[in-house]
Amino acid sequence: MGTALLYIGNKNYSSWSLRPWIGLRVAGIAFEEKLVPFDMAAGNPAFKAFSPTGKVPVLVDDGLTVWESLAILDHMARKHPEAGLWPEDQALRSRAMAMSAEMMSSFQALRGACPMNMRRPRAPIARTPAIDADVARIEALWSQSLALSGGPFLLGRFSIADAMFAPVVNRLDVYGFETGPEVAAYMDRVKALPAWREWEAAGRAEPWTVVEDEA
Amino acid sequence: MGTALLYIGNKNYSSWSLRPWIGLRVAGIAFEEKLVPFDMAAGNPAFKAFSPTGKVPVLVDDGLTVWESLAILDHMARKHPEAGLWPEDQALRSRAMAMSAEMMSSFQALRGACPMNMRRPRAPIARTPAIDADVARIEALWSQSLALSGGPFLLGRFSIADAMFAPVVNRLDVYGFETGPEVAAYMDRVKALPAWREWEAAGRAEPWTVVEDEA
Repeated sequence: MGTALLYIGNKNYSSWSLRPWIGLRVAGIAFEEKLVPFDMAAGNPAFKAFSPTGKVPVLVDDGLTVWESLAILDHMARKHPEAGLWPEDQALRSRAMAMSAEMMSSFQALRGACPMNMRRPRAPIARTPAIDADVARIEALWSQSLALSGGPFLLGRFSIADAMFAPVVNRLDVYGFETGPEVAAYMDRVKALPAWREWEAAGRAEPWTVVEDEA
Repeated sequence: MGTALLYIGNKNYSSWSLRPWIGLRVAGIAFEEKLVPFDMAAGNPAFKAFSPTGKVPVLVDDGLTVWESLAILDHMARKHPEAGLWPEDQALRSRAMAMSAEMMSSFQALRGACPMNMRRPRAPIARTPAIDADVARIEALWSQSLALSGGPFLLGRFSIADAMFAPVVNRLDVYGFETGPEVAAYMDRVKALPAWREWEAAGRAEPWTVVEDEA
């Protein structure tokens, strides 16, 4: 049984790649990574060699290809139950899945206007009511989760819910959104993780610029 | 422990509501349902009384509120492991989650142009390359899944993957897409399920029209 291989895009920009990467890293699950740079103009043709959707991330584990960040995390959670990727408490676990699914299905205004960008200097962006509504919902969701679980992460220890929302920590930070103190403290705890710092430093050092993601 | 209560929108149109409803029904898991009609013009204010996102579906189970169709199905799969909502085989289960996540994150062209509509007379719609690409990907995903599992449903017995794609069966059908024989036979098996027929008959009998969903 070899080490699982995680294909990712650019660390500066690929929010979907960050999700499984940071989840597995914080949980202490070993994996190899292969970074394939974006080629937006050409439609990322290199991704088609390993990805059934032509998108990243993709995990190849023992000959099995798993795509979609949530599916990669859930696959590894079942394979490594001792790593605690899902909360042990069943009510918190149902909440973790609901939050993760909401991240995938929602927040299009924030995601469209504020792409993840690890090297962006902190500066506010022009707000719209739709962006503000997305941020208000995220703040409410995080605050309620921290209150329910007692923290320090959304549902107690760092879980798939935190991994799924990790790119939003960058977005609220670099696009200059003001948050309440509990949410600000949560974001500081995420940004202080060694795994976060490792990813951020690598992203900042990358030579590539994706014009579409420079807002 | 009372019976879980599933809040849904109109059966004719609410594709997200159909997903947990048909998954639980086919698996034989008891639940009560409460249909709350859409009020698109006013932004569905009635949903806010029970839904943290203001959207349907929502499950209330023993005081716990679970939102997002995939999370509702996963919650009930953990609570009723004997019902087999996830495939038993771990590789097929990882595929089921990847497919379910892809359904949530993708196929925007098809979803936008071809809303689920149980009572729509079968008639083709103007195609675009983006719609055709979505349908081609869905056909490939379904064909590969049926070949891998041996059927009769996507990953063997009816699972969360089939539930998540159930609204697409209606879309491919009523908007007149031609599919290969394996996929057509799969769609026929889904449409022959007593649970499908029950939902379809109820949707067709509903008095409400949602103008946005009449394409």
